[in-house]
Amino acid sequence: MAAHAERYRDVGRVLVTCPDRPGIVAAISGLLFRHGANITELQQYSTDPFGGTFFLRIEFHREELVSGLAAIEDGLATIAAEPAMGGGMRWRVTTPAARHRVAIFVSKADHALQELLWRTHAGELAMDVRMVVSNHDDLRSAATDWGIPFHHVPVTSTTRDEAESRALALLDGEVDLVVLARYMQILTPRFLAAYPDRVINIHHSFLPAFVGADPYGAAARRGVKLIGATAHYVTADLDAGPIIEQDIERVDHRHQVADLRRIGRHVERAVLARAVGWHLEDRVIVHSNTTIVFA
Amino acid sequence: MAAHAERYRDVGRVLVTCPDRPGIVAAISGLLFRHGANITELQQYSTDPFGGTFFLRIEFHREELVSGLAAIEDGLATIAAEPAMGGGMRWRVTTPAARHRVAIFVSKADHALQELLWRTHAGELAMDVRMVVSNHDDLRSAATDWGIPFHHVPVTSTTRDEAESRALALLDGEVDLVVLARYMQILTPRFLAAYPDRVINIHHSFLPAFVGADPYGAAARRGVKLIGATAHYVTADLDAGPIIEQDIERVDHRHQVADLRRIGRHVERAVLARAVGWHLEDRVIVHSNTTIVFA
Amino acid sequence: MAAHAERYRDVGRVLVTCPDRPGIVAAISGLLFRHGANITELQQYSTDPFGGTFFLRIEFHREELVSGLAAIEDGLATIAAEPAMGGGMRWRVTTPAARHRVAIFVSKADHALQELLWRTHAGELAMDVRMVVSNHDDLRSAATDWGIPFHHVPVTSTTRDEAESRALALLDGEVDLVVLARYMQILTPRFLAAYPDRVINIHHSFLPAFVGADPYGAAARRGVKLIGATAHYVTADLDAGPIIEQDIERVDHRHQVADLRRIGRHVERAVLARAVGWHLEDRVIVHSNTTIVFA
Amino acid sequence: MAAHAERYRDVGRVLVTCPDRPGIVAAISGLLFRHGANITELQQYSTDPFGGTFFLRIEFHREELVSGLAAIEDGLATIAAEPAMGGGMRWRVTTPAARHRVAIFVSKADHALQELLWRTHAGELAMDVRMVVSNHDDLRSAATDWGIPFHHVPVTSTTRDEAESRALALLDGEVDLVVLARYMQILTPRFLAAYPDRVINIHHSFLPAFVGADPYGAAARRGVKLIGATAHYVTADLDAGPIIEQDIERVDHRHQVADLRRIGRHVERAVLARAVGWHLEDRVIVHSNTTIVFA
Repeated sequence: MAAHAERYRDVGRVLVTCPDRPGIVAAISGLLFRHGANITELQQYSTDPFGGTFFLRIEFHREELVSGLAAIEDGLATIAAEPAMGGGMRWRVTTPAARHRVAIFVSKADHALQELLWRTHAGELAMDVRMVVSNHDDLRSAATDWGIPFHHVPVTSTTRDEAESRALALLDGEVDLVVLARYMQILTPRFLAAYPDRVINIHHSFLPAFVGADPYGAAARRGVKLIGATAHYVTADLDAGPIIEQDIERVDHRHQVADLRRIGRHVERAVLARAVGWHLEDRVIVHSNTTIVFA
Repeated sequence: MAAHAERYRDVGRVLVTCPDRPGIVAAISGLLFRHGANITELQQYSTDPFGGTFFLRIEFHREELVSGLAAIEDGLATIAAEPAMGGGMRWRVTTPAARHRVAIFVSKADHALQELLWRTHAGELAMDVRMVVSNHDDLRSAATDWGIPFHHVPVTSTTRDEAESRALALLDGEVDLVVLARYMQILTPRFLAAYPDRVINIHHSFLPAFVGADPYGAAARRGVKLIGATAHYVTADLDAGPIIEQDIERVDHRHQVADLRRIGRHVERAVLARAVGWHLEDRVIVHSNTTIVFA
Repeated sequence: MAAHAERYRDVGRVLVTCPDRPGIVAAISGLLFRHGANITELQQYSTDPFGGTFFLRIEFHREELVSGLAAIEDGLATIAAEPAMGGGMRWRVTTPAARHRVAIFVSKADHALQELLWRTHAGELAMDVRMVVSNHDDLRSAATDWGIPFHHVPVTSTTRDEAESRALALLDGEVDLVVLARYMQILTPRFLAAYPDRVINIHHSFLPAFVGADPYGAAARRGVKLIGATAHYVTADLDAGPIIEQDIERVDHRHQVADLRRIGRHVERAVLARAVGWHLEDRVIVHSNTTIVFA
Repeated sequence: MAAHAERYRDVGRVLVTCPDRPGIVAAISGLLFRHGANITELQQYSTDPFGGTFFLRIEFHREELVSGLAAIEDGLATIAAEPAMGGGMRWRVTTPAARHRVAIFVSKADHALQELLWRTHAGELAMDVRMVVSNHDDLRSAATDWGIPFHHVPVTSTTRDEAESRALALLDGEVDLVVLARYMQILTPRFLAAYPDRVINIHHSFLPAFVGADPYGAAARRGVKLIGATAHYVTADLDAGPIIEQDIERVDHRHQVADLRRIGRHVERAVLARAVGWHLEDRVIVHSNTTIVFA
């Protein structure tokens, strides 16, 4: 943790989404240069150089960052206010020395949770896991063994709203990101509105898709050869939010439904960990229902 | 071609699907041994050792195969007639020295056709491509350059039945397998009934699936990170037949719809070639709507 | 654990390596059938049907297995004694209800250990981890948190023999398999002779190989695009024993040496877990310096 | 071809390698903006923001590019001449409307050649294949069928220098890039000096490496599970030049040496095609013995 703060001391990131027009890179890189910042990583993408949307992620180093941040932010605000932007530029500056504060929601399956906690412990995920929240009590020690508070918030069909209120109260002011690590409850629009583009979910995926109550069974009955997982931001349109990351593993006819589920777990934990890692490093920009991932 | 015939001289294959019960492997391997056959490859699979379905593929070598085949087939018929089988055993013996005779159906895209012809030429696919059939004339030279007859059978909404009759007449007695290598017409149940489990198709697939007229566009709008392809046997239930093989390639936000299509082509040709190869080597057994692939 | 014993009650496995000749499958499957065993899985491979070596793995179910084992073993011994075998048949029967007893050796890195313990806990690896042995004390709690005895056996250049004797004494009669999960000491031929084909190691691999003290640095200086890992049985010829499993992950120029090491850890833990799993299920047969893996 | 020229009309690329220091991106993006160029793609990388080497690739669009190129080049020369650069900045501007002119060298194997020609034909590789050169006559029609001149330049141990002179004469003024598509002769330093960082080779690779006369045999005897290929720029240090791309395919114990070679061919053609494609799009920058690949 101290190592993280040390590594990212004086490091900042600029994230910009705006209408594409000539001169954006020159304007922002010039601004940073004038304020003593050295660009260490720059990625950009334009959906169409002629009238499309432009995305920019810059990581920079500036001595005594704290004393220069306000001027950089003022400069970005000035660029955003230029008439050529037509009011359509969104921007933010982040300081990664302060790690994201995260709540992990789980139900009974522990694979995704264990992976996230192990990678955090190994220094691979720069997050401060503030709490684990679950609608069951099963995974309490999986959290508390790592010294992380565990909150059991039961959910029943009649207590859904009340339970969600309780969860929101636990999170309030405490976390920047919610990771659903096989949390088997549906969040309401109210919850999602409180954390826009900041709730990440993981779920199984197949080629082609199998919908309904028993997707692994349906996949087995069709003889699928690949088991996949998709990590995405949660939107009100269930399981149809912008995709952050996907991957698959091969299977064959010898895999019974239980095997498919087991392999699905391995894909899920790897995909979720990568998606969360990119989010924590401010590498994911949501645009309509897609993501720009500056991996 | 001569090399193929030489390599597979005196090689036979036994394929069996039957109710699982103790003693099947002993009965069939004993039969082969008594008739001078040496098993060179054996694969089996049971959906459930207690009351499930059993699948067996044996490749064997027998000196002067021709003179022993009838006795082996008689022996298999006798086993199939045993009361314990309850009449549920299906079996066949194939002799790979005689290559499968194949028709390839195409429309305008040449990638899958070129791959199949190149692999055939390179000795990787043991098939005798008897003809290329297309509803367009564009790929004529792609076939005739390799010395393969090309038949242009136009299809319009009013001539569909007539066109299909013409295609069936071309195939009749000439081919054992039909490969749809990006053939953009739908085959009728009449056609499929003539070639049960012997029409292989390739189509794109995504995690999750995108249905409708513009799947690549829909995939791009959701930000998919994988482009896949599925090779399957064609059944009357469009694009829902038993899957033989699948694979994917990674993409990211920089891939425009045209790039996704290009990458899709690469996945399609590789997946189709693998599926066809396994079929030609009698490695694929269809069971309900799944496949057993003894790859 | 109880679930494991229940699932494998009355399950046995036959493993055979012998000179290939006609009739082997018939003889052994006939033997099993006569003794009431139902084959549930059978895999075979021959290096050459004419004068090569034949490998067979059969998993079978037999009611009251205990009462039938001796007769099956007698039958196998009789087959092995046939003149046609020329004394060259090796065979064994295993009963998976009794899980393999395993010692895991580690040094300071915990990734491979954590993965093995998590998969064991999740029921994916059917092993009884009897102890963790290390030349350092760092990973004590990683073992004891899961209730597994931890033995700190320091090794210095002057105490190597003594330390190894101490380790051998800990293992004696207690374990069937030794897994080196990033154990950074070299085992002597004396140790390896006590556990032939029963010490599994994991190490990094590259395309091409980079030898010497700093392989990740050398790989970075050449611009490699893949980081791999190889799991193999340990022989006296350091890191050149029969390979069980390999895999890779993609990297690019942005990955610094520390990133390559981190990614290497992920590949290592996945590859080691798969290799150990196949060993535990008696799916790996060593032949000269190669492996037959009936995965 | 016309489509290519149309698509890239008025498109330019700037490629820069220089000592890293603050302000580079601002200087170059400012220059482009002042001269009417709109950045459509920008990638940068620094080995170390403090005293490392900086790499930049910018693709831009400028109306009437021809009339503005000289001014942009002058501006880059001015930046390169700044004292802060210490004389260490290398840069170039390319205009992709003019496709690279390429010679493909082959021996007897056609897989890599066919793939390159098919992808060129399909519009996936933006190159003008000026000639195929071979030390054998076998692949003449593979070239001439596509309308490409074929030159048979036999090489024997006594005519090596003379043959190479003949090849150099064929290339002189005609090509910008030489692709060795399974060309089994070693090029001399004289040849390589004429095409620095412009000769791309493909060769098989394994984890670990197997050196000597029979690498596939050695790999089989160790039981490798992955077959790989490496595309790299050729340097005087045989097969040790900077790596552009690598990939692998899985194999198992059933693959005989001939199968490994066949699978090796598939990996080789895919890896070579990707490497050539990135080179053609100016996405590869050589740095010491590594590559920066802005894929």
